[in-house]
Amino acid sequence: MTRKPWTVRRSRTVLKDRWIHVNAEAVEDARGNLLDPFYTFEYPDWVHVVALTPSDELVLIRQYRHGAQDFCLELPAGGMDPGETDPVPAGARELLEETGYAAGSLRLVSSLSPNPASHRNRSHNLLALDVRKIAEPRLEPGEDITVELHPWQDVLARLDEGILPQVMHVSALLLCLRAAGRLRF
Amino acid sequence: MTRKPWTVRRSRTVLKDRWIHVNAEAVEDARGNLLDPFYTFEYPDWVHVVALTPSDELVLIRQYRHGAQDFCLELPAGGMDPGETDPVPAGARELLEETGYAAGSLRLVSSLSPNPASHRNRSHNLLALDVRKIAEPRLEPGEDITVELHPWQDVLARLDEGILPQVMHVSALLLCLRAAGRLRF
Repeated sequence: MTRKPWTVRRSRTVLKDRWIHVNAEAVEDARGNLLDPFYTFEYPDWVHVVALTPSDELVLIRQYRHGAQDFCLELPAGGMDPGETDPVPAGARELLEETGYAAGSLRLVSSLSPNPASHRNRSHNLLALDVRKIAEPRLEPGEDITVELHPWQDVLARLDEGILPQVMHVSALLLCLRAAGRLRF
Repeated sequence: MTRKPWTVRRSRTVLKDRWIHVNAEAVEDARGNLLDPFYTFEYPDWVHVVALTPSDELVLIRQYRHGAQDFCLELPAGGMDPGETDPVPAGARELLEETGYAAGSLRLVSSLSPNPASHRNRSHNLLALDVRKIAEPRLEPGEDITVELHPWQDVLARLDEGILPQVMHVSALLLCLRAAGRLRF
């Protein structure tokens, strides 16, 4: 492998809206091949919150997801708002908005990439401990969410069958449970 | 939560090319809110291969990724080709093309969603055991890949720092190592 990044010859925005921003670039790879167009996505960073109650239950949400066309069990998660630069308060905000829960402690475990081939944003995994319900959820249009509490061991036992179908949430869950000392690997 | 899927009022393709297919739909959620446009992505299904050698090393690849604009360590992975319907031979093909390795046994561990909010495809996690090098990699334009062997314990110890930056690969790795009996959770 050559240690040379691709060279961008041209770049243009082909789709931009509130929820999406696609760029089409003409790029030259390290061996001189021209790839045109090569598409990349600009999104805000995403936060995923692994929230454990004092009785060691996960605070999860179930909602209709139009990509999968199914009702999916997921972590509280979302995009960082304009002006938000720290994933920790962004995670606290998403947790509160989607579930009405707040955390006794909240910390960043890892910042990874949703898809380094195409995505320009980062995916932040947050561990929330000692979470308790302090309010009712505040839902936006398109959100129709039910909060569900599940013992984390039950969720882990059913990961292969897709109880948590969102792949990014599976990794967030496992990394944060390790950070919480619940798993050893 | 109401148990009612969204209703699609209109749907149109806004971007379609070899590597991308974006639909813009006008959808009505269960509470009657109109979301227009709501974007979904049609991709082929993706396969991710966790490949272990007889000496328990992971067969990984390092390549430049233009989304992250960095050289990323990843699992052998890719999209299923037109006509491929079974993720197992698709995974064997990707493993061979990208690394030159073939597996003594290969099996599907889980089929999840890359992102149920927006993606219509599935993400298949495959466990390959007893993998050995049988050929040289066959690389396509835009691929400039180095194969690296890493003891799986070393990769696990550095997941939080992003040694494997692709979030979907982190979950594939952990689920497949569990299926291989290397991890217990």
